[in-house]
Amino acid sequence: MSVPLPDTAKTWLDSKVFATVATIGNDGQPQLSVVWVKHDGDDVLFSTTTNRQKYRNLVRDPRATISVFNPDVPYQYLEVRGGIVFEDEGSMALIDEFAKKYQDWDRYPADDGTDNVRITVRIKPQKVVFNG
Amino acid sequence: MSVPLPDTAKTWLDSKVFATVATIGNDGQPQLSVVWVKHDGDDVLFSTTTNRQKYRNLVRDPRATISVFNPDVPYQYLEVRGGIVFEDEGSMALIDEFAKKYQDWDRYPADDGTDNVRITVRIKPQKVVFNG
Repeated sequence: MSVPLPDTAKTWLDSKVFATVATIGNDGQPQLSVVWVKHDGDDVLFSTTTNRQKYRNLVRDPRATISVFNPDVPYQYLEVRGGIVFEDEGSMALIDEFAKKYQDWDRYPADDGTDNVRITVRIKPQKVVFNG
Repeated sequence: MSVPLPDTAKTWLDSKVFATVATIGNDGQPQLSVVWVKHDGDDVLFSTTTNRQKYRNLVRDPRATISVFNPDVPYQYLEVRGGIVFEDEGSMALIDEFAKKYQDWDRYPADDGTDNVRITVRIKPQKVVFNG
């Protein structure tokens, strides 16, 4: 069962807001990264590649917590905790969509020729804290 | 053994930057909060009260991860993971210092008359990721 996102939180996630995502390291300590973000209904989506520590963390423990705050009023924030699922399909389209939204690029630059695979991480909210 | 903070990271922490701090919930999932922050040498300091979930999390598991990004260039970020120690002494002076730094208030407003106790959390960096 997913928990709904407030409409105002969805509006934030539609904007060019940067999110901080926490994954769980192999010693249990959170790792934090800054990510591009969007919502899809009540789910929160970000993109990564399979060479990243946060991907390895999510393979080991498929839970993530994400937060955003309003840069103009940082006392307004959203925190979402949930389980995650990986999505291969559409992962290139999503990173291009993010590149357009955040950078006004028509395409995200091609990766570095290694075997890194682009992947979408979908957070299914189980706990939402919103103060906006 | 503490890990040093880069000088540029210290400059960020001297500015009115908002940090995201991750503590570890009782189910192992990170909890995220937005906090006022400063550095003291290589340590990173924030303030909380003993009624907060993040305080209870830190009592159970005295580790925290904190990140800040440059609001003007969000691709520049600092992540610090470490063990924490609590400090009672100077905790009211620190929250007043933060109130001055972030809000230009001479004092932080008095708490709500409950038994909540103001406390300083000092992160001793064990891992620093800096891209600034």
